Amino acid sequence: MPKIVDHSERKSNIAEATWRVIIHQGIKGATVRNIAAEAGVSLGALRHYFSTQHELLVFAMNLVKERVTGRIVNIMQTDLPPREQVARVLLELLPVDDSSMAEMEVWFAFIFHLKSAGEPNSELSDAIYPLVIQLIDYLDGHGLLRQELDKDNEAERLYAVVDGLALHAMLEPERLNKQRIIRVLNIHLDSICNSGEAQ
Amino acid sequence: MPKIVDHSERKSNIAEATWRVIIHQGIKGATVRNIAAEAGVSLGALRHYFSTQHELLVFAMNLVKERVTGRIVNIMQTDLPPREQVARVLLELLPVDDSSMAEMEVWFAFIFHLKSAGEPNSELSDAIYPLVIQLIDYLDGHGLLRQELDKDNEAERLYAVVDGLALHAMLEPERLNKQRIIRVLNIHLDSICNSGEAQ
Repeated sequence: MPKIVDHSERKSNIAEATWRVIIHQGIKGATVRNIAAEAGVSLGALRHYFSTQHELLVFAMNLVKERVTGRIVNIMQTDLPPREQVARVLLELLPVDDSSMAEMEVWFAFIFHLKSAGEPNSELSDAIYPLVIQLIDYLDGHGLLRQELDKDNEAERLYAVVDGLALHAMLEPERLNKQRIIRVLNIHLDSICNSGEAQ
Repeated sequence: MPKIVDHSERKSNIAEATWRVIIHQGIKGATVRNIAAEAGVSLGALRHYFSTQHELLVFAMNLVKERVTGRIVNIMQTDLPPREQVARVLLELLPVDDSSMAEMEVWFAFIFHLKSAGEPNSELSDAIYPLVIQLIDYLDGHGLLRQELDKDNEAERLYAVVDGLALHAMLEPERLNKQRIIRVLNIHLDSICNSGEAQ
């Protein structure tokens, strides 16, 4: 009888090894050889799952995306007030602990790697903007968004606030700590939500 | 009589060659050898001006910083109304044409290169945040900032809006074109400025 291998778990393990390699050695260090060594598998085993480095990196990034999406779905299924749900979802997109900081570093490194390699990155960068549009719609659907605001403009602005904070928290974590991120995020939500709900 | 060489101009030429190499080949391609070839100088000549790759990259980035600073000083010396001056200064920090897009790509590539190399990047990342603090102070000094706002929080938020827009304009220039950048930026300024001045 052949040895039973959980392929999905093994692929996830390899993806996690990929993140560790990128965090410690940068995207340049994310060679198939280094990742195999970090994952404790042979080059041949790794190539069985991922035939190219690009395929492996895309898988690793999609795993980040799936995990974040899973956390977001959980938040939206709670009984929290809509504005609080939105605030918590946005916080999932920000590096506020070691784990999300690592995800964010990998994400940015990968986005810039694709950009400088001239690869299309639509499959990945597509993820956040549509979510932010949905959140603005969600606030509006619950009568929380100030009526004078334009939803399209506000989605673009909120998207900028979130990724700007993410970028700065990654580059200057001492100044922009979790507490400060939450404060600025809430000030922004206050400024676009009706005041009765906001304070 | 020895040949007269304008060292400052030659260093600028090498820095500009550095940008072109990074734009076309990514930061990984920014080797001393590639840059010398692009600048049309010998390796020896390049090493006369810059003894390490790091020294060269820092010089190239500081040249971006100096140019942007020069443009900002010019704007602040105009007779434009203060709010308009602030809007124009912020626009200098955003990729709204080919030249500023190139500067932005080099800037981000370099910041991430330093980050992944574990190098301190304080000399560079220090540049924008203090400027944003000054702009918020400038608006407040002219009685334009809404009185209920906290200047420290608003500087952090404006900084996030600007860099978030810059990042997205670089990654998704088709959606986030110059017109859209200006619109979102003005909406943000409207939201923090007194309404008499804003509309």
